[in-house]
Amino acid sequence: MVMEEKLWEHVIRVRTQAPLVHNITNYVVMNNTANALLAVGASPIMAHAKSEIHEMVGIAQALVVNIGTLDEYWSEAMCQAAEAAHGMGKPWVLDPVGAGATSFRDAVLSRLLSFKPTVIRGNASEIIALAKANKTATKGVDSTAHSQEALDAASYLVEHYGTVICVSGETDIIVDSQQSFFIKNGHPLMTKVTGLGCSASALIGAFIGVVADQSEAVAAAMGLLGIAGELAVLQSAGPGSLQVHLLDTLYNMTKEEFVGNLKISRR
Amino acid sequence: MVMEEKLWEHVIRVRTQAPLVHNITNYVVMNNTANALLAVGASPIMAHAKSEIHEMVGIAQALVVNIGTLDEYWSEAMCQAAEAAHGMGKPWVLDPVGAGATSFRDAVLSRLLSFKPTVIRGNASEIIALAKANKTATKGVDSTAHSQEALDAASYLVEHYGTVICVSGETDIIVDSQQSFFIKNGHPLMTKVTGLGCSASALIGAFIGVVADQSEAVAAAMGLLGIAGELAVLQSAGPGSLQVHLLDTLYNMTKEEFVGNLKISRR
Amino acid sequence: MVMEEKLWEHVIRVRTQAPLVHNITNYVVMNNTANALLAVGASPIMAHAKSEIHEMVGIAQALVVNIGTLDEYWSEAMCQAAEAAHGMGKPWVLDPVGAGATSFRDAVLSRLLSFKPTVIRGNASEIIALAKANKTATKGVDSTAHSQEALDAASYLVEHYGTVICVSGETDIIVDSQQSFFIKNGHPLMTKVTGLGCSASALIGAFIGVVADQSEAVAAAMGLLGIAGELAVLQSAGPGSLQVHLLDTLYNMTKEEFVGNLKISRR
Repeated sequence: MVMEEKLWEHVIRVRTQAPLVHNITNYVVMNNTANALLAVGASPIMAHAKSEIHEMVGIAQALVVNIGTLDEYWSEAMCQAAEAAHGMGKPWVLDPVGAGATSFRDAVLSRLLSFKPTVIRGNASEIIALAKANKTATKGVDSTAHSQEALDAASYLVEHYGTVICVSGETDIIVDSQQSFFIKNGHPLMTKVTGLGCSASALIGAFIGVVADQSEAVAAAMGLLGIAGELAVLQSAGPGSLQVHLLDTLYNMTKEEFVGNLKISRR
Repeated sequence: MVMEEKLWEHVIRVRTQAPLVHNITNYVVMNNTANALLAVGASPIMAHAKSEIHEMVGIAQALVVNIGTLDEYWSEAMCQAAEAAHGMGKPWVLDPVGAGATSFRDAVLSRLLSFKPTVIRGNASEIIALAKANKTATKGVDSTAHSQEALDAASYLVEHYGTVICVSGETDIIVDSQQSFFIKNGHPLMTKVTGLGCSASALIGAFIGVVADQSEAVAAAMGLLGIAGELAVLQSAGPGSLQVHLLDTLYNMTKEEFVGNLKISRR
Repeated sequence: MVMEEKLWEHVIRVRTQAPLVHNITNYVVMNNTANALLAVGASPIMAHAKSEIHEMVGIAQALVVNIGTLDEYWSEAMCQAAEAAHGMGKPWVLDPVGAGATSFRDAVLSRLLSFKPTVIRGNASEIIALAKANKTATKGVDSTAHSQEALDAASYLVEHYGTVICVSGETDIIVDSQQSFFIKNGHPLMTKVTGLGCSASALIGAFIGVVADQSEAVAAAMGLLGIAGELAVLQSAGPGSLQVHLLDTLYNMTKEEFVGNLKISRR
C-alpha cells in the first residue's frame, strides 16, 4: 500500500476508535485544542490536579504535555503525569513551548525528558534549544544553517532519549532512529492563528494512542492538520475565519482530499 | 398561557434584567461560556480567588460551579462560593463534569452537594455517577436501561438534596419533586463543539437568577440553547462554524423561532 | 503630517517590528488576546510563573497586566512583573478589570499602581473606582455626570501617577498631562463579545512597545480596534461572527480604511 493510503487509514482509525487524550496544556489554546481533537474524532480530557493526575493518565490512551503557561504547580503535575504515563507504558507527547526562553522552562524540560516522551514536537528553535540544554557532550550543535541545525538537534534527541522528534515548520520533519519523513503541507497564514502548533501536538497524541507505528502516527497527524489548513485558507479572509474553517475542514476531511493533497517523502 | 409562550417570557426576562452570573468554571470553556451569557443578554463574571469569592457571590444574582479543570485550590474556592451562595439564599448551579472519573472529583462533588445546589446539570453518566457516589442506602441504582438509570439517579438526587436535576442528552430531562420536563431540541453536531454542556449550565445560571420557577428556568435555558443549536447547524459546514453561528443565533433568537421550534412535554 | 496618517505609521511600525508583548492576563480572553496581537503583527507571550517572570519581562518589548481572573499567586506574579518592567524602564499597561468590585482587587491595584504603569485602560466605572480607591486627598471625585466623573478621575490618575489614561466607551478618551484625544470609533455590538476591552489593552501594549509618543501609541491602538470593529460588524450576523471577522479585519486593515474611518479629535 502506498504511504498516502496507509496514513489515511490512521485517520480513519482515530475516527472509529475515538481515543481518550489527556492534555495538560496551556490556557491560551485549551479551547481550540479540545475542538481540534473533537473534530478529528478523538475525546479530549483536560485535567491537571495532582490529586487526580495518576487516575486520569490511567483512563486515557495517550497523554499530551504542553508547557506553554507552566508554573511551579503545573510543572510538578506535568512531571507526575509523564512519570505515570512512562510507568504504565502509555504513549505521551511533549510540546516544549518556549524552550530556551527561560532557565525555568529548561529545568522543567530536563525533568520531563527523563520520562522518555514518545514524541516531541516543536519548532526548529525549540528543538535546537532542547538539544543544547540537555547535551552532556561538549561538541555542541553548531551547524551554520538553521534547518541543518534543527535536524542535528533532532537526531541528537532521537539518539539519546529514544523519542520520535517532529520539527514543524514550512516543511515538517519527523525523525526516528531509522528514517525521516518530510511533509510539505500547511500554509503561512496558519502561523497567525495562536496555538496551531499546540493543536498539532494534541492530534499527535490522538494518533499515537491508536497507531502502533509511532512515526507514521506523527506523519498522519501532521499531514492531516497541514492539508486541513491549506484547504481552510482557500475559504478564509484572514486568521479569524481560518480558525473556524480549519475545524470544519478537519471534521469533513475525505480520503480524496487527504490522499490527493499529501506531500510526503521519506528518507 | 401555553408553556412555549411562558418560557419565551423567561428568555425576555433574561434579556431585560441582564443578570450578573458568577462563574467558577473550567479553563477550556471560559471564553465561549462568557460569550454565550452575553449573547442571551446576561452579564458574566469569572472569578475564583478565595480572597474575593465571598464578595463576588454577594454582587451576583446566581452562581455557576463547573468542576471541569478543578484542582485543590479551585475546589476549595468552589466550596466556599457554594457555601456563600447557600448562606445568602442565592440560586446556584452545579455542573459535575467528569463525575465518577476520579475519586478526587467524587470527593469534591460530595462536599459541593452539601451546599444544596439549586440545579445540577450533567449528562446521563455524570448524573448516574453522582447518585451512586452519594447513596447511603444500599439498594443501588441498577436499572438495566441507561436512560432509565439516569432517571432513577435524577429522582434520587431530587429527593435527597432538594435540587432540580437536568440530564442533558438527545432528550433533555428536567426533574423536580413534582414533575418532569422533556425537551427534544438540539443536534448531534453540538457534541463536536467543546463545552456546549458547560454553556448550558451557565445559561441555566442566568435563568434561575431572574425566574422564580426553577424548573421552568431550566427548561427555558435548555430549550433556548437546543433551538439555537438546531438553527445554527443549518448554516454550518462543521463544528467550527457551528460555534460561531450558535452565538449569533442565541443573540438574534425571535419569539417565532423559539415558540415554533420548542419541542417540550411535561409529565 | 495630519494625525490620521501619523497614527497609520504607528500601525505599520507594529507590523514591521513585530514587538514581543508579554501578557499576564485573564483566562477568559487569553485566546482572543493572543489572536488579536498576531493579527496586528505583534508576537504574544503568555507567562505568569514567578520562577520565570523576571526573565520573560526581560525579553519582551512591553508588558500587559490584566487582573480579570486574578488570585493570590497571580497577583503576586503581576506585581513582580510590573516591578521588573518599571525597574528595566520597559513600558507596561494595566487593565484594572473589575476595579471597585472587591476589596481584594482594589488592594492589588494599589500595589500595581506603585510601579507606575505607562498606560491604564479601563471603562469609566473602573477608572472612577481606581481613582476613588487611591485618593489621599479628601475632596473626592464627585461630579454628577458619569462621563465628567470619568474625565476627572482620569486627570487625577494622570497627575498623581504620571500615567496615560485611556477611558474606553462610546467615545474613547486618552488623557495625558498635556492633552486629550477623543476617538469616536467602534460599535455597540463589540460589547457583546467577551474581552474586546482586554484586546484593546493588549494592542496598546504592542503599540507602546514600538512607538515613542505614548499617547499617540494608545490612540493608534484604540482607533485601529474601533475601526476594525465597525468594518467587521458590517459583515457579521451577531457577536459570534463579529469575533471572527474582527480578527480578519485587523489583519487586513489598509491605510485607506484606517485613515478614511478614523474619527479623532484632540484638545
